[in-house]
Amino acid sequence: MDELAISFDDVAAAHRRLAGVAQRTPVFTSRTADERCGAQLFFKCENLQRIGAFKIRGAYNAIAQFTPAQRSGGVITFSSGNHAQAIALAARLLGVKAVIVMPKDAPEIKLAATRGYGGEIVPYDRYREDPDAIVGAIARERGMTVVPPFDHPQVMAGQGTVAKELIEEVGELDVLVTPVGGGGLLSGCATAARAMSPGCRIVGVEPEAGNDAQRSLAQGQIVRIATPQTIADAAQSRSLGRYTFPVLQRLGAEIVTVSDAKLIETMRFFANRMKMVAEPTGCLGAAALLGSALEVRGLRVGVVVSGGNVDLARFASLIGAA
Amino acid sequence: MDELAISFDDVAAAHRRLAGVAQRTPVFTSRTADERCGAQLFFKCENLQRIGAFKIRGAYNAIAQFTPAQRSGGVITFSSGNHAQAIALAARLLGVKAVIVMPKDAPEIKLAATRGYGGEIVPYDRYREDPDAIVGAIARERGMTVVPPFDHPQVMAGQGTVAKELIEEVGELDVLVTPVGGGGLLSGCATAARAMSPGCRIVGVEPEAGNDAQRSLAQGQIVRIATPQTIADAAQSRSLGRYTFPVLQRLGAEIVTVSDAKLIETMRFFANRMKMVAEPTGCLGAAALLGSALEVRGLRVGVVVSGGNVDLARFASLIGAA
Repeated sequence: MDELAISFDDVAAAHRRLAGVAQRTPVFTSRTADERCGAQLFFKCENLQRIGAFKIRGAYNAIAQFTPAQRSGGVITFSSGNHAQAIALAARLLGVKAVIVMPKDAPEIKLAATRGYGGEIVPYDRYREDPDAIVGAIARERGMTVVPPFDHPQVMAGQGTVAKELIEEVGELDVLVTPVGGGGLLSGCATAARAMSPGCRIVGVEPEAGNDAQRSLAQGQIVRIATPQTIADAAQSRSLGRYTFPVLQRLGAEIVTVSDAKLIETMRFFANRMKMVAEPTGCLGAAALLGSALEVRGLRVGVVVSGGNVDLARFASLIGAA
Repeated sequence: MDELAISFDDVAAAHRRLAGVAQRTPVFTSRTADERCGAQLFFKCENLQRIGAFKIRGAYNAIAQFTPAQRSGGVITFSSGNHAQAIALAARLLGVKAVIVMPKDAPEIKLAATRGYGGEIVPYDRYREDPDAIVGAIARERGMTVVPPFDHPQVMAGQGTVAKELIEEVGELDVLVTPVGGGGLLSGCATAARAMSPGCRIVGVEPEAGNDAQRSLAQGQIVRIATPQTIADAAQSRSLGRYTFPVLQRLGAEIVTVSDAKLIETMRFFANRMKMVAEPTGCLGAAALLGSALEVRGLRVGVVVSGGNVDLARFASLIGAA
């Protein structure tokens, strides 16, 4: 059997690299949520992380391990979301040049944020061009190193520090719940949890509209789907990755799904009861619990709130309608 | 010269009573806010407190000191806001009956929250009846003890624990900024700050529409105004109190004002950059800093975000309009 892409040692090493760079985000509790689930929930608030999402952890961990030659060449990636800002900020902190290939019709607020962190944006036409081909061509031409958003051992190890911090703070858990898109966060967190809290169930939550992770684990092979239509824009990945899938499979991750309607209810719960802004994808874990997709009565449950980057007007329209 | 209503010892005693009852709320920082003000800001997040505002501190501290006779008689107050919920919850925790006199046209959400904590609501007609007279009559008739929202030494001492925790956590401050309505929070925090960080400037921020505190301190006597028209509904008090005013005067508190427009900008800033929901009144301190009503370049500044209780639909409409 092949070795998995990462071990707990990789997560621990990532955590040392991230000291003073990533926030040690707070863990919140809510009596109301506990009562509703009959359980003890610990919300790890990565919406309060730098750049507003956990992605800085993996991006920084990857670029920090560049060789001198890679550092002088720079980093390149493709993303229209949180990974774009994460790469731009991590590269700036490490003095490395960053190129981000982004759809030219991406929201101006995301283009501006990425530019604000010092990233060079290469726009492309998403109806006529293939971003992977563009990334590959620029990488070759300019000698840049590609750091993809999830399917990369050092990115996965960096994301695993979320669970490491959570379990360090609250102790062993019965269940750990995180969003799942391409599986970077879930595979890293699963690796940390297996080592630190061996009996812990590991559950990924994905949008109902695109249950490729659930089907992949059920079928024992990576299932690819068309880009799912969901408000959870940071979980619109089309498949798990060749590094993330074996980790999830071997560590026994389970997958449940939730509807967009439950995500909106959960955004409202976070704003109303916990006074927090979470983006739709960040609500996946809590939505599975509050919406009863996952039964946890009597258990100690860690829940990763993965991000809070949602345009204010969109946030207002989602929470405003009762 | 008369003794002031409270000393630091009262704040310290309140803090011991509140252990395990009030949350030790987190202190957040924001690079963006720091850059904008050229200062180091520490946000004490009482919007993340139980009942969503600091008011539980003072309410609990007061009821916890009831005599056995007072406990069996119960507590009564008048409030349509956070103090109503605070009294209801504190009374329930202490096994004391609570009556809250509330306008009968108060938002259903506030009536429901107060009822949810076990408070008995006595509705009154705010166009035809005087709530103080109703409170007084019920108190006499039923042998209940009145705990008013701010002008009460034990309430003031309880609110002062906000500043005590903040300074314990981040060290001495050059400036401490809090909202001011009737002066309960500000007088308690001033008492803590004078003892723990003697050189600290103490600044209260009130809505531009009702600058009675500013005028009171300038004139050396309590100025009464008509209920001010402002979105900062928890700072719509008509005057400082006979206990709070002398504390603010003697401890040298300064007052600045901000407009409703700046409060809305600050709500948007909190949601967008710090992923937090703050109610309009909770934004007063930060609005003075971000809106340049207060110059703090190069300084270490504590800012109390006093509450987060805002109806979601109203919140959405305030932050949604660009």
